[in-house]
Amino acid sequence: MAARGEALEVHVDLLSQPCRALLMFLTHNRIPHTVRTVALRKGEHKTAEFTELNPMQKVPVMVDRGFVLTESDAILKYLATKYKVAEHWYPRDPERRARVDEYTAWHHTNIRPHAAKVFLLEVLVPRMSGQPVDQLKLERALGQLGETLDKLETMFLKRQPFLCGDDVTLADLLAVCEIMQPLGGGRDILKGRPKLEAWRSRVKSVLKGSFDDAHRVLFRLRDKFTSKL
Amino acid sequence: MAARGEALEVHVDLLSQPCRALLMFLTHNRIPHTVRTVALRKGEHKTAEFTELNPMQKVPVMVDRGFVLTESDAILKYLATKYKVAEHWYPRDPERRARVDEYTAWHHTNIRPHAAKVFLLEVLVPRMSGQPVDQLKLERALGQLGETLDKLETMFLKRQPFLCGDDVTLADLLAVCEIMQPLGGGRDILKGRPKLEAWRSRVKSVLKGSFDDAHRVLFRLRDKFTSKL
Repeated sequence: MAARGEALEVHVDLLSQPCRALLMFLTHNRIPHTVRTVALRKGEHKTAEFTELNPMQKVPVMVDRGFVLTESDAILKYLATKYKVAEHWYPRDPERRARVDEYTAWHHTNIRPHAAKVFLLEVLVPRMSGQPVDQLKLERALGQLGETLDKLETMFLKRQPFLCGDDVTLADLLAVCEIMQPLGGGRDILKGRPKLEAWRSRVKSVLKGSFDDAHRVLFRLRDKFTSKL
Repeated sequence: MAARGEALEVHVDLLSQPCRALLMFLTHNRIPHTVRTVALRKGEHKTAEFTELNPMQKVPVMVDRGFVLTESDAILKYLATKYKVAEHWYPRDPERRARVDEYTAWHHTNIRPHAAKVFLLEVLVPRMSGQPVDQLKLERALGQLGETLDKLETMFLKRQPFLCGDDVTLADLLAVCEIMQPLGGGRDILKGRPKLEAWRSRVKSVLKGSFDDAHRVLFRLRDKFTSKL
């Protein structure tokens, strides 16, 4: 985290998947920035002040010298264009760039909702309601997630090491953060999927410390969860 | 529609909203292309041949000299970059481009599912099941769509004529096609929303003939529907 008062600010919560993708990108690429924490569990995204910044009441929000931008997908693409980062993150070549845009479009209605739902059912709902996990709903959500992971594996990772080709891109960042989310409830959704596990390891080894740093709150949640079992 | 055998091919169905956005873009910008019709109602997206082209079994699919691309959002951005079209469609300036990326990211989980659901409940489900419209589900879907239209109006169209600024962009094409869809069941979802109606008129007057041309199958469906009433 940079000192307070940088020209680039990001409003984030480490328990939000796209916020982690954004933070890993900023840290890994050494883009000076200020982190403003918006604690979702305390409802800080619903305050008048935050609603003025983003009427959608969602994180992340980026403010770059007064330019306010929402939607992680758009923020990452903007940063990759505006700041000096290695070209592989969001290639300029139209065909290679189109592959990243293709994945990010697909992501919104596939990996993101299905992985998030498992976390919701296994961690958030029981915590908020005090009720046990609804096993029937969980089974159904795991089934849908499984089909989506199959597609990720057989389509995007077919004959290539990263989702959009030979090198890591923004797509891998967004995907890996969603896939990590259910770990907050002690569940590794890539268990028994060696091809996807190998991909995750490749993404982690590119990101090094910034991966663990962005996931520290999720890891703490997992540790609490598994110590209870 | 261009003569068969152009180097650029698009696989589309005119009853699919994103396919219409793609066709309007191609026709309006006079990009030579060949249309390959994939009749969804006949299940042509599930044939072995089409599944080989797109294992996701979805339209549209673009093939540009052998480069196969799925996801309308990615296809439009690729075409706007690769072909000579007016810059306003997908501006090169990072901030203006980010506005288009922001809308398209939001679109996937807001306007698209909510407008599509109304069409599904009012037209597709009754037609396939032979059952009357489920009024309770329809009311709920209309409620969600209403909230989304409010956001479109108060956020994206706040103080500007088009969704992403002073000029029309890819975002307006994708949005207008979703908003037209429930018209297939005789329902104009912008009725009583003068600000959004004025925006749609602006988009239509930019597109001229290509708007009506892309919507001809939807208009036919509307006419059949309203003549039954």
